[in-house]
Amino acid sequence: MGQNERKLHLNAFLAASGHHEAAWRHADTNPEKSVDIRHYARLAQIAERGLLDSLFLADGYAGAGGKLEPFTQLAALATLTEKIGLIATVGTTYNEPYHVARKFASLDHISGGRAGWNIVTGAGSAAFNFGREEHPEHSERYEAAEEFVEVVKQLWDSWDDDAGVYDKQSGVQVDKNKVREINFKGHTYSVKGPLNIPRPPQGYPVLVQAGSSESGRELAAKTAEVIFTAQQSLEEAREFYSDVKSRLAKYGRSPDQLSILPGLSPIVADTEAEARDIEHELNSYINVNSAVRRLSDRLNLDLTGHPLDGPLPYDLLPGVDTINGHKGRYLLIVDVARRENLTIRQLTQRLAGARGHLTFAGTPIQLADLIEEWFETGGSDGFNVMPQLYPSGLETFVDKVVPELQNRGLFRTAYEGSTLREHLGLARPANLRSAFAASS
Amino acid sequence: MGQNERKLHLNAFLAASGHHEAAWRHADTNPEKSVDIRHYARLAQIAERGLLDSLFLADGYAGAGGKLEPFTQLAALATLTEKIGLIATVGTTYNEPYHVARKFASLDHISGGRAGWNIVTGAGSAAFNFGREEHPEHSERYEAAEEFVEVVKQLWDSWDDDAGVYDKQSGVQVDKNKVREINFKGHTYSVKGPLNIPRPPQGYPVLVQAGSSESGRELAAKTAEVIFTAQQSLEEAREFYSDVKSRLAKYGRSPDQLSILPGLSPIVADTEAEARDIEHELNSYINVNSAVRRLSDRLNLDLTGHPLDGPLPYDLLPGVDTINGHKGRYLLIVDVARRENLTIRQLTQRLAGARGHLTFAGTPIQLADLIEEWFETGGSDGFNVMPQLYPSGLETFVDKVVPELQNRGLFRTAYEGSTLREHLGLARPANLRSAFAASS
Repeated sequence: MGQNERKLHLNAFLAASGHHEAAWRHADTNPEKSVDIRHYARLAQIAERGLLDSLFLADGYAGAGGKLEPFTQLAALATLTEKIGLIATVGTTYNEPYHVARKFASLDHISGGRAGWNIVTGAGSAAFNFGREEHPEHSERYEAAEEFVEVVKQLWDSWDDDAGVYDKQSGVQVDKNKVREINFKGHTYSVKGPLNIPRPPQGYPVLVQAGSSESGRELAAKTAEVIFTAQQSLEEAREFYSDVKSRLAKYGRSPDQLSILPGLSPIVADTEAEARDIEHELNSYINVNSAVRRLSDRLNLDLTGHPLDGPLPYDLLPGVDTINGHKGRYLLIVDVARRENLTIRQLTQRLAGARGHLTFAGTPIQLADLIEEWFETGGSDGFNVMPQLYPSGLETFVDKVVPELQNRGLFRTAYEGSTLREHLGLARPANLRSAFAASS
Repeated sequence: MGQNERKLHLNAFLAASGHHEAAWRHADTNPEKSVDIRHYARLAQIAERGLLDSLFLADGYAGAGGKLEPFTQLAALATLTEKIGLIATVGTTYNEPYHVARKFASLDHISGGRAGWNIVTGAGSAAFNFGREEHPEHSERYEAAEEFVEVVKQLWDSWDDDAGVYDKQSGVQVDKNKVREINFKGHTYSVKGPLNIPRPPQGYPVLVQAGSSESGRELAAKTAEVIFTAQQSLEEAREFYSDVKSRLAKYGRSPDQLSILPGLSPIVADTEAEARDIEHELNSYINVNSAVRRLSDRLNLDLTGHPLDGPLPYDLLPGVDTINGHKGRYLLIVDVARRENLTIRQLTQRLAGARGHLTFAGTPIQLADLIEEWFETGGSDGFNVMPQLYPSGLETFVDKVVPELQNRGLFRTAYEGSTLREHLGLARPANLRSAFAASS
């Protein structure tokens, strides 16, 4: 197997009990461990045993979901793992670039170069937790996010890689000419710098993006090195894949500088019938009223008065322009409902496995077939694996699916590098500010 | 030794190379490990071997000091230690209560109840890193800080301790009646809540305060459970101790609800002569120009034109009212210089050991004598230990001074509890919002 052969990238999307919305009611799960770091250490160690590229934590700043905070959680997991990447979701709208640049630099140092940042602009309900009257509009958030990322990169570049001298004889600890103010003054942010921590081991932590709207795709093409996306069919995945990859050239980037990883939410068992049984059991635990409320939120339309066993009221749907958040997901849900002619009840079940991500129930061989087909025919560069049950679903994936992918030559048989950039085949970014200083 | 006998509390103030400003030039130190988590893990494990109450990290949001960020650093250290408390400095002026409440709750869960928050309002130079034109004035910052802490406590109380149900049969994961919005609307902050993480294991992480100005003392008396303070003499320490303890009653608090820990920056060796040799060696490494610049900043007066071997120009000093930051430290420095009749050069050496904290060079017995005297005669409840050299100074303290304190019955011989509150003899705070809900 040659070094340069294209390999799958696999990320484990962590969750306390799994990605099926009723996973916590299954006997295999431990929902009472939702803030127990030992539980997540176990998941991380299973994923690392499976040689996965990275772990990923979603995040938000509102609601009553009881989870650990990503920076503290991933810093703790960094010391309990050796190689696996650690990707935190951090929203731009209610954060400061200085704090975010610094925490990611710190996580990257602590983990020896394994940090990644999933850049999101956040959901509307967070506004009230930060003294704001309303969530900024979609395009305004994306413009601010672009500037936010620019400030953060400049802050990471405010230290040259070789700024630390530590010469006890001469008394020079840090070369002050190699640590610079950035004096950034933009539309939204004004930041003097420098950052108060040396440049991250990876130069920049890996930049990840998850929005699939028009502005999300464009920001991803300009900025992202990994995209997480929800795709319901190989055909749609191919359209998305070629669309996003084709946007890279105008930013001077090549297709291999961005890995596209659709979500994949599997239930794997030795026989297809067993997998279907687990799926049916999980679906039997769904609270249909809660599910209809969540679907109503997604579609910005109150469905509670409509017959559960009738179709979506398509003529009442408000349109994607009224959605100030997950625009891509709105379109996906309406499309699936219409194409598969689903009732409201059926739609809630269709979404229960992974909120609109691709679900699967079958054998290890069948799942490896699906992964291989998407990977080899222009659908993806790998997957964001979202087991419907944790830890059992992750264990099955690692112990039964990963070996099959390795047998087919699609996946690594050992970590070749030690940073997340190395796992993903990404170059370490040059220090743009240092280069500028040298050439001026 | 009875359970109720008063015991010393000892905190280790972490630093890369030690608290002497030139420690990094000493052969025993490893300044190149300033962002290496294994280095801090070693320090933490030494401190835990010495049964110290806690570790403490200072912090700031400006300058080019190359350090790890406290939340990520302490979360990493939480997994590498078992019992020792983990105190992070987090400033209020440039942070959001929601983020701070959440990260401390997360650190407290990850560490099993070992988190502490050193509440500061921050230094002026940070303003430019957060799009602000200037640092808010001292009293304005303290008023906002008081409100900030109030919001954070309400957010921690937004979950009842028993809100998690996790009943797979009935399908109730969290009792929604036990997770409440706070709808806080104050002068500076407006936060809806609830927080998105269960109440911390300690109820509230331990609240620490380090300001010794008039507003700092009052905020401490109202809010703090530990005070770090700089005191140059036992007489001054006693004045401070009795002043602050006497302020507690008006807030309905008893003296044992607040531990006062002056900084103590020791050099310990088997003979006093050896300790003095280390001190002289360290002082020989001082860069006097840098030291005069730092002293100029502290005093808000440019001293670079004044003779190094002459006295401070007392008539030119601008007065404490012009200091918008460390007011208590300004007064301490001027007082020491005047009382000991120091030249500018001598003053920089006097401050080099620990920036104005009490320094010591001598034997383990002599240091134990000092600690015992301060502890037994109303000067302190213990110390914030600031070794001039890391790791060697901490190792000497733990291996030679701690046993002497144990022999004298002044310090624990085993951790009796597992949370920082338990180490400090502090009760777990009741949930105020839950109590209010029950009685209304």
